[in-house]
Amino acid sequence: MTVVAHTEYLTIRTPSRYEIRDITPDIERVRAAAGLWDGTILVSTMHITSSIFVNDHEPGLWRDILAWAEKLAPYGEDYAHHQTGEDNGDAHLKRMLLGHQVIVPVTKGALDLGPWERVHYGEFDGMRPKRVLLKALGIRE
Amino acid sequence: MTVVAHTEYLTIRTPSRYEIRDITPDIERVRAAAGLWDGTILVSTMHITSSIFVNDHEPGLWRDILAWAEKLAPYGEDYAHHQTGEDNGDAHLKRMLLGHQVIVPVTKGALDLGPWERVHYGEFDGMRPKRVLLKALGIRE
Amino acid sequence: MTVVAHTEYLTIRTPSRYEIRDITPDIERVRAAAGLWDGTILVSTMHITSSIFVNDHEPGLWRDILAWAEKLAPYGEDYAHHQTGEDNGDAHLKRMLLGHQVIVPVTKGALDLGPWERVHYGEFDGMRPKRVLLKALGIRE
Repeated sequence: MTVVAHTEYLTIRTPSRYEIRDITPDIERVRAAAGLWDGTILVSTMHITSSIFVNDHEPGLWRDILAWAEKLAPYGEDYAHHQTGEDNGDAHLKRMLLGHQVIVPVTKGALDLGPWERVHYGEFDGMRPKRVLLKALGIRE
Repeated sequence: MTVVAHTEYLTIRTPSRYEIRDITPDIERVRAAAGLWDGTILVSTMHITSSIFVNDHEPGLWRDILAWAEKLAPYGEDYAHHQTGEDNGDAHLKRMLLGHQVIVPVTKGALDLGPWERVHYGEFDGMRPKRVLLKALGIRE
Repeated sequence: MTVVAHTEYLTIRTPSRYEIRDITPDIERVRAAAGLWDGTILVSTMHITSSIFVNDHEPGLWRDILAWAEKLAPYGEDYAHHQTGEDNGDAHLKRMLLGHQVIVPVTKGALDLGPWERVHYGEFDGMRPKRVLLKALGIRE
Protein backbone atom coordinates (compact mmCIF):
# COMPACT_ATOMS: atom_id res chain seq x y z
CA MET A 1 0.00 0.00 0.00
CA THR A 2 1.30 3.43 -0.97
CA VAL A 3 0.13 6.50 0.89
CA VAL A 4 -1.32 9.25 -1.35
CA ALA A 5 -1.40 12.99 -0.63
CA HIS A 6 -2.49 15.02 -3.64
CA THR A 7 -3.82 18.59 -3.66
CA GLU A 8 -5.46 20.67 -6.37
CA TYR A 9 -7.17 24.04 -6.46
CA LEU A 10 -10.29 24.92 -8.38
CA THR A 11 -11.00 28.54 -9.36
CA ILE A 12 -14.65 29.55 -9.67
CA ARG A 13 -15.97 32.91 -10.87
CA THR A 14 -19.74 33.06 -10.87
CA PRO A 15 -21.55 35.52 -13.19
CA SER A 16 -23.92 36.57 -10.38
CA ARG A 17 -23.57 37.45 -6.71
CA TYR A 18 -25.45 34.33 -5.52
CA GLU A 19 -25.18 30.94 -7.15
CA ILE A 20 -25.16 27.21 -6.44
CA ARG A 21 -23.10 24.92 -8.65
CA ASP A 22 -22.54 21.15 -8.68
CA ILE A 23 -18.78 20.46 -8.55
CA THR A 24 -18.91 16.66 -8.17
CA PRO A 25 -17.21 16.04 -11.57
CA ASP A 26 -14.19 18.08 -10.41
CA ILE A 27 -13.89 15.87 -7.34
CA GLU A 28 -13.93 12.67 -9.41
CA ARG A 29 -11.27 14.20 -11.68
CA VAL A 30 -9.01 14.87 -8.66
CA ARG A 31 -9.61 11.33 -7.34
CA ALA A 32 -8.48 9.87 -10.65
CA ALA A 33 -5.44 12.17 -10.88
CA ALA A 34 -4.42 11.11 -7.35
CA GLY A 35 -4.98 7.43 -8.09
CA LEU A 36 -6.86 7.25 -4.81
CA TRP A 37 -8.23 3.78 -4.03
CA ASP A 38 -9.37 4.23 -0.42
CA GLY A 39 -9.44 7.38 1.68
CA THR A 40 -11.05 10.80 1.57
CA ILE A 41 -11.08 13.97 -0.48
CA LEU A 42 -11.37 17.16 1.52
CA VAL A 43 -13.30 19.80 -0.43
CA SER A 44 -12.97 23.17 1.27
CA THR A 45 -13.66 26.67 0.04
CA MET A 46 -10.72 29.01 0.74
CA HIS A 47 -13.02 32.03 0.99
CA ILE A 48 -15.21 33.09 3.89
CA THR A 49 -18.20 34.17 1.83
CA SER A 50 -18.85 30.88 0.06
CA SER A 51 -19.87 27.36 0.95
CA ILE A 52 -19.35 23.69 0.17
CA PHE A 53 -22.23 21.33 0.93
CA VAL A 54 -23.86 18.08 -0.14
CA ASN A 55 -27.41 18.02 -1.40
CA ASP A 56 -29.55 17.03 -4.37
CA HIS A 57 -28.76 18.12 -7.95
CA GLU A 58 -32.15 19.80 -8.39
CA PRO A 59 -32.46 23.45 -9.50
CA GLY A 60 -35.75 23.94 -7.61
CA LEU A 61 -34.03 22.86 -4.41
CA TRP A 62 -31.13 25.19 -5.16
CA ARG A 63 -33.61 28.09 -5.31
CA ASP A 64 -35.09 26.90 -1.99
CA ILE A 65 -31.63 26.83 -0.41
CA LEU A 66 -30.79 30.36 -1.58
CA ALA A 67 -34.19 31.69 -0.43
CA TRP A 68 -33.80 29.95 2.94
CA ALA A 69 -30.30 31.37 3.48
CA GLU A 70 -31.61 34.83 2.54
CA LYS A 71 -34.49 34.47 5.02
CA LEU A 72 -32.23 33.42 7.91
CA ALA A 73 -29.29 35.72 7.07
CA PRO A 74 -30.66 38.60 4.98
CA TYR A 75 -28.67 40.90 2.72
CA GLY A 76 -28.75 44.61 3.54
CA GLU A 77 -29.02 44.39 7.33
CA ASP A 78 -27.03 46.80 9.45
CA TYR A 79 -24.19 44.36 10.18
CA ALA A 80 -21.29 45.57 12.35
CA HIS A 81 -18.97 44.07 9.72
CA HIS A 82 -20.12 46.78 7.31
CA GLN A 83 -18.29 49.40 9.36
CA THR A 84 -15.14 48.07 7.64
CA GLY A 85 -16.56 49.24 4.30
CA GLU A 86 -17.80 45.78 3.26
CA ASP A 87 -21.44 45.08 2.32
CA ASN A 88 -21.25 41.26 2.48
CA GLY A 89 -22.07 40.53 6.13
CA ASP A 90 -24.90 38.30 4.95
CA ALA A 91 -22.46 36.18 2.93
CA HIS A 92 -20.29 35.53 6.02
CA LEU A 93 -23.38 34.24 7.86
CA LYS A 94 -24.89 32.30 4.96
CA ARG A 95 -21.65 30.39 4.57
CA MET A 96 -21.80 29.42 8.29
CA LEU A 97 -25.38 28.17 7.85
CA LEU A 98 -24.49 25.91 4.91
CA GLY A 99 -20.96 24.90 5.91
CA HIS A 100 -17.61 25.52 4.24
CA GLN A 101 -16.16 22.05 3.71
CA VAL A 102 -17.09 18.47 2.99
CA ILE A 103 -15.21 15.18 3.29
CA VAL A 104 -15.93 12.93 0.31
CA PRO A 105 -15.23 9.25 1.06
CA VAL A 106 -13.49 7.15 -1.58
CA THR A 107 -13.85 3.35 -1.55
CA LYS A 108 -12.50 0.87 -4.14
CA GLY A 109 -11.42 3.65 -6.45
CA ALA A 110 -14.75 5.52 -6.61
CA LEU A 111 -16.47 8.38 -4.80
CA ASP A 112 -18.54 6.59 -2.15
CA LEU A 113 -21.65 8.78 -2.30
CA GLY A 114 -25.31 7.90 -1.91
CA PRO A 115 -27.51 7.91 -5.04
CA TRP A 116 -28.56 11.57 -4.69
CA GLU A 117 -25.52 12.99 -2.92
CA ARG A 118 -23.79 15.67 -4.99
CA VAL A 119 -21.19 18.15 -3.77
CA HIS A 120 -22.08 21.80 -4.38
CA TYR A 121 -20.31 25.13 -4.29
CA GLY A 122 -22.49 27.92 -2.87
CA GLU A 123 -21.47 31.47 -3.76
CA PHE A 124 -22.82 34.44 -1.76
CA ASP A 125 -20.46 37.19 -2.92
CA GLY A 126 -19.51 36.28 -6.44
CA MET A 127 -18.43 37.92 -9.70
CA ARG A 128 -14.77 37.50 -8.75
CA PRO A 129 -12.40 34.50 -8.71
CA LYS A 130 -12.67 32.23 -5.66
CA ARG A 131 -10.59 29.14 -4.89
CA VAL A 132 -11.63 25.71 -3.64
CA LEU A 133 -9.05 23.29 -2.21
CA LEU A 134 -9.34 19.58 -3.03
CA LYS A 135 -7.01 17.32 -1.05
CA ALA A 136 -6.98 13.57 -1.66
CA LEU A 137 -5.55 11.52 1.23
CA GLY A 138 -5.39 7.76 1.60
CA ILE A 139 -3.90 4.82 -0.26
CA ARG A 140 -3.34 3.63 -3.79
CA GLU A 141 -4.45 0.13 -4.70
CA MET B 1 2.81 1.05 11.83
CA THR B 2 0.24 -0.39 9.47
CA VAL B 3 -2.17 1.89 7.63
CA VAL B 4 -5.86 1.02 8.14
CA ALA B 5 -8.74 1.77 5.72
CA HIS B 6 -11.94 0.03 6.75
CA THR B 7 -15.49 0.92 5.65
CA GLU B 8 -18.88 -0.25 6.87
CA TYR B 9 -22.45 0.80 6.16
CA LEU B 10 -25.24 1.10 8.69
CA THR B 11 -28.86 0.84 7.60
CA ILE B 12 -31.43 2.77 9.63
CA ARG B 13 -35.20 2.67 9.18
CA THR B 14 -36.99 4.89 11.68
CA PRO B 15 -40.62 4.15 12.60
CA SER B 16 -41.54 7.85 12.30
CA ARG B 17 -40.82 10.63 9.82
CA TYR B 18 -38.66 12.61 12.30
CA GLU B 19 -36.31 11.03 14.81
CA ILE B 20 -32.98 11.49 16.56
CA ARG B 21 -30.97 8.41 17.51
CA ASP B 22 -27.61 7.96 19.28
CA ILE B 23 -25.35 5.82 17.04
CA THR B 24 -22.13 6.09 19.10
CA PRO B 25 -22.06 2.34 19.90
CA ASP B 26 -22.01 1.56 16.16
CA ILE B 27 -18.97 3.78 15.76
CA GLU B 28 -17.07 2.03 18.55
CA ARG B 29 -17.96 -1.32 16.97
CA VAL B 30 -16.47 -0.18 13.63
CA ARG B 31 -13.34 1.13 15.41
CA ALA B 32 -12.81 -2.25 17.03
CA ALA B 33 -13.45 -4.15 13.78
CA ALA B 34 -10.88 -1.96 12.02
CA GLY B 35 -8.33 -2.34 14.83
CA LEU B 36 -7.86 1.43 14.64
CA TRP B 37 -5.33 2.76 17.16
CA ASP B 38 -4.93 6.36 15.97
CA GLY B 39 -6.83 8.19 13.27
CA THR B 40 -10.40 9.14 12.47
CA ILE B 41 -13.75 7.61 11.68
CA LEU B 42 -15.81 9.50 9.12
CA VAL B 43 -19.53 9.13 9.86
CA SER B 44 -21.57 10.42 6.94
CA THR B 45 -25.19 9.95 6.00
CA MET B 46 -25.58 8.85 2.38
CA HIS B 47 -29.01 10.50 2.10
CA ILE B 48 -29.81 14.16 1.62
CA THR B 49 -32.76 14.30 4.01
CA SER B 50 -30.95 13.14 7.15
CA SER B 51 -28.18 14.36 9.39
CA ILE B 52 -25.18 13.30 11.49
CA PHE B 53 -24.25 15.54 14.41
CA VAL B 54 -22.66 15.53 17.86
CA ASN B 55 -24.62 16.61 20.89
CA ASP B 56 -25.79 15.44 24.31
CA HIS B 57 -27.60 12.11 24.85
CA GLU B 58 -30.63 13.80 26.40
CA PRO B 59 -34.18 13.20 25.07
CA GLY B 60 -35.36 16.68 26.15
CA LEU B 61 -32.59 18.22 24.07
CA TRP B 62 -33.51 15.96 21.14
CA ARG B 63 -37.04 17.40 21.26
CA ASP B 64 -35.54 20.91 21.36
CA ILE B 65 -33.40 20.16 18.31
CA LEU B 66 -36.36 18.81 16.30
CA ALA B 67 -38.54 21.78 17.31
CA TRP B 68 -35.76 24.22 16.44
CA ALA B 69 -35.20 22.64 13.02
CA GLU B 70 -38.96 22.76 12.40
CA LYS B 71 -39.06 26.44 13.38
CA LEU B 72 -36.17 27.41 11.08
CA ALA B 73 -37.07 25.08 8.18
CA PRO B 74 -40.80 24.28 8.46
CA TYR B 75 -42.62 21.37 6.90
CA GLY B 76 -45.42 22.19 4.46
CA GLU B 77 -44.03 25.39 2.98
CA ASP B 78 -44.38 26.01 -0.72
CA TYR B 79 -40.86 24.87 -1.61
CA ALA B 80 -39.81 24.95 -5.28
CA HIS B 81 -38.48 21.42 -4.77
CA HIS B 82 -42.07 20.23 -4.38
CA GLN B 83 -42.70 20.90 -8.08
CA THR B 84 -40.82 17.62 -8.65
CA GLY B 85 -43.60 15.78 -6.77
CA GLU B 86 -41.66 15.54 -3.47
CA ASP B 87 -42.99 16.92 -0.18
CA ASN B 88 -39.72 16.82 1.77
CA GLY B 89 -38.19 20.22 1.03
CA ASP B 90 -38.02 20.86 4.76
CA ALA B 91 -35.91 17.73 5.25
CA HIS B 92 -33.33 18.94 2.69
CA LEU B 93 -32.97 22.21 4.64
CA LYS B 94 -33.06 20.69 8.13
CA ARG B 95 -30.18 18.43 7.20
CA MET B 96 -28.14 21.47 6.11
CA LEU B 97 -28.84 23.18 9.43
CA LEU B 98 -27.62 20.22 11.49
CA GLY B 99 -24.88 18.92 9.19
CA HIS B 100 -24.51 15.62 7.36
CA GLN B 101 -21.19 14.23 8.59
CA VAL B 102 -18.89 14.09 11.59
CA ILE B 103 -15.24 13.12 12.02
CA VAL B 104 -14.75 11.06 15.19
CA PRO B 105 -11.14 11.16 16.42
CA VAL B 106 -9.56 7.93 17.67
CA THR B 107 -6.58 8.04 20.04
CA LYS B 108 -4.85 5.10 21.73
CA GLY B 109 -7.49 2.67 20.54
CA ALA B 110 -10.55 4.56 21.82
CA LEU B 111 -13.04 7.13 20.51
CA ASP B 112 -11.54 10.42 21.68
CA LEU B 113 -14.77 12.20 22.63
CA GLY B 114 -15.51 14.65 25.42
CA PRO B 115 -17.59 13.41 28.38
CA TRP B 116 -20.96 14.42 26.87
CA GLU B 117 -20.17 14.11 23.18
CA ARG B 118 -22.34 11.50 21.46
CA VAL B 119 -22.82 11.03 17.72
CA HIS B 120 -26.44 11.17 16.56
CA TYR B 121 -28.38 10.31 13.44
CA GLY B 122 -31.13 12.82 12.67
CA GLU B 123 -33.92 11.61 10.40
CA PHE B 124 -36.26 14.10 8.70
CA ASP B 125 -37.91 11.87 6.09
CA GLY B 126 -37.98 8.43 7.63
CA MET B 127 -40.01 5.21 7.50
CA ARG B 128 -37.71 3.82 4.81
CA PRO B 129 -34.18 2.39 4.86
CA LYS B 130 -31.34 4.93 4.89
CA ARG B 131 -27.61 4.23 4.86
CA VAL B 132 -24.79 5.75 6.92
CA LEU B 133 -21.16 5.32 5.85
CA LEU B 134 -18.51 4.72 8.53
CA LYS B 135 -14.91 4.86 7.29
CA ALA B 136 -12.02 4.23 9.67
CA LEU B 137 -8.70 5.66 8.50
CA GLY B 138 -5.37 5.76 10.33
CA ILE B 139 -2.95 3.29 11.86
CA ARG B 140 -2.97 0.06 13.82
CA GLU B 141 -0.87 -0.14 16.96
CA MET C 1 7.39 8.95 3.73
CA THR C 2 6.59 8.55 7.41
CA VAL C 3 3.01 8.56 8.61
CA VAL C 4 2.27 11.10 11.36
CA ALA C 5 -0.45 10.88 14.03
CA HIS C 6 -0.07 13.53 16.69
CA THR C 7 -2.76 14.75 19.12
CA GLU C 8 -2.85 17.70 21.50
CA TYR C 9 -5.56 19.25 23.65
CA LEU C 10 -6.13 22.94 24.19
CA THR C 11 -7.90 24.20 27.31
CA ILE C 12 -9.90 27.41 26.99
CA ARG C 13 -11.64 29.27 29.82
CA THR C 14 -13.39 32.41 28.60
CA PRO C 15 -14.06 35.28 31.04
CA SER C 16 -17.62 35.69 29.74
CA ARG C 17 -20.47 33.34 28.85
CA TYR C 18 -20.29 34.13 25.10
CA GLU C 19 -17.06 34.72 23.22
CA ILE C 20 -15.36 34.19 19.87
CA ARG C 21 -11.59 33.67 19.79
CA ASP C 22 -9.11 33.11 16.95
CA ILE C 23 -7.14 29.92 17.67
CA THR C 24 -5.22 29.69 14.37
CA PRO C 25 -1.81 30.18 16.07
CA ASP C 26 -2.45 27.10 18.24
CA ILE C 27 -3.09 25.06 15.11
CA GLU C 28 0.18 26.16 13.48
CA ARG C 29 1.98 25.29 16.73
CA VAL C 30 0.53 21.75 16.64
CA ARG C 31 1.45 21.39 12.95
CA ALA C 32 5.06 22.28 13.72
CA ALA C 33 5.20 19.97 16.77
CA ALA C 34 3.88 17.11 14.61
CA GLY C 35 6.31 17.87 11.79
CA LEU C 36 3.35 17.56 9.43
CA TRP C 37 4.25 18.15 5.78
CA ASP C 38 1.05 17.06 4.04
CA GLY C 39 -2.26 16.04 5.57
CA THR C 40 -4.90 17.53 7.81
CA ILE C 41 -5.40 18.80 11.32
CA LEU C 42 -8.76 18.01 12.86
CA VAL C 43 -9.83 20.79 15.25
CA SER C 44 -12.84 19.66 17.28
CA THR C 45 -14.37 21.03 20.45
CA MET C 46 -14.91 18.28 23.04
CA HIS C 47 -17.88 20.13 24.56
CA ILE C 48 -21.43 20.34 23.26
CA THR C 49 -21.99 24.01 24.06
CA SER C 50 -19.13 25.44 22.00
CA SER C 51 -18.13 25.67 18.37
CA ILE C 52 -15.19 25.57 15.96
CA PHE C 53 -15.61 27.44 12.68
CA VAL C 54 -13.69 29.28 9.98
CA ASN C 55 -14.37 32.93 9.29
CA ASP C 56 -12.70 36.35 9.12
CA HIS C 57 -10.57 37.74 11.97
CA GLU C 58 -12.76 40.84 12.34
CA PRO C 59 -14.30 41.82 15.70
CA GLY C 60 -17.30 43.50 14.06
CA LEU C 61 -18.08 40.25 12.28
CA TRP C 62 -17.66 38.34 15.54
CA ARG C 63 -20.37 40.54 17.08
CA ASP C 64 -22.57 39.87 14.04
CA ILE C 65 -22.07 36.12 14.45
CA LEU C 66 -22.98 36.19 18.16
CA ALA C 67 -26.05 38.39 17.48
CA TRP C 68 -27.14 36.12 14.63
CA ALA C 69 -26.79 32.98 16.76
CA GLU C 70 -28.77 34.70 19.53
CA LYS C 71 -31.52 35.65 17.06
CA LEU C 72 -31.85 32.13 15.64
CA ALA C 73 -31.33 30.25 18.93
CA PRO C 74 -32.22 32.64 21.77
CA TYR C 75 -31.17 32.36 25.38
CA GLY C 76 -33.94 32.07 27.96
CA GLU C 77 -36.49 30.15 25.92
CA ASP C 78 -38.46 27.38 27.56
CA TYR C 79 -36.28 24.56 26.24
CA ALA C 80 -37.19 20.98 27.22
CA HIS C 81 -33.49 20.50 28.06
CA HIS C 82 -33.96 22.90 30.99
CA GLN C 83 -36.09 20.31 32.78
CA THR C 84 -32.74 18.63 33.63
CA GLY C 85 -31.79 21.74 35.65
CA GLU C 86 -29.59 23.24 32.91
CA ASP C 87 -30.14 26.74 31.49
CA ASN C 88 -27.93 26.38 28.40
CA GLY C 89 -30.34 24.98 25.80
CA ASP C 90 -29.49 27.92 23.57
CA ALA C 91 -25.79 26.97 23.66
CA HIS C 92 -26.54 23.42 22.44
CA LEU C 93 -28.40 24.88 19.44
CA LYS C 94 -25.95 27.71 18.71
CA ARG C 95 -23.14 25.18 18.49
CA MET C 96 -25.15 23.19 15.90
CA LEU C 97 -25.70 26.35 13.83
CA LEU C 98 -21.98 27.21 13.71
CA GLY C 99 -20.52 23.69 13.67
CA HIS C 100 -18.27 21.90 16.13
CA GLN C 101 -15.23 20.90 14.09
CA VAL C 102 -13.04 21.96 11.21
CA ILE C 103 -10.48 20.14 9.07
CA VAL C 104 -7.45 22.34 8.40
CA PRO C 105 -5.50 21.22 5.32
CA VAL C 106 -1.70 21.21 5.48
CA THR C 107 0.36 21.37 2.27
CA LYS C 108 4.16 21.64 1.97
CA GLY C 109 4.56 22.13 5.70
CA ALA C 110 2.11 25.04 6.08
CA LEU C 111 -1.57 25.51 6.95
CA ASP C 112 -3.21 25.69 3.53
CA LEU C 113 -5.76 28.41 4.27
CA GLY C 114 -7.13 31.18 2.07
CA PRO C 115 -5.99 34.76 2.79
CA TRP C 116 -8.84 35.53 5.21
CA GLU C 117 -9.53 32.08 6.59
CA ARG C 118 -8.94 31.90 10.34
CA VAL C 119 -10.08 29.14 12.70
CA HIS C 120 -12.20 30.33 15.62
CA TYR C 121 -13.44 28.93 18.90
CA GLY C 122 -17.01 30.01 19.71
CA GLU C 123 -18.04 29.77 23.36
CA PHE C 124 -21.73 29.85 24.34
CA ASP C 125 -21.53 28.64 27.94
CA GLY C 126 -18.18 29.84 29.21
CA MET C 127 -16.46 30.83 32.45
CA ARG C 128 -15.24 27.25 32.94
CA PRO C 129 -12.47 25.16 31.34
CA LYS C 130 -13.33 23.60 27.97
CA ARG C 131 -11.11 21.36 25.84
CA VAL C 132 -10.40 21.40 22.11
CA LEU C 133 -8.82 18.39 20.39
CA LEU C 134 -6.21 18.98 17.67
CA LYS C 135 -5.19 15.86 15.72
CA ALA C 136 -2.54 16.07 13.01
CA LEU C 137 -2.67 13.20 10.49
CA GLY C 138 -0.64 12.75 7.34
CA ILE C 139 3.00 12.47 6.34
CA ARG C 140 6.36 13.98 7.26
CA GLU C 141 8.54 15.29 4.47
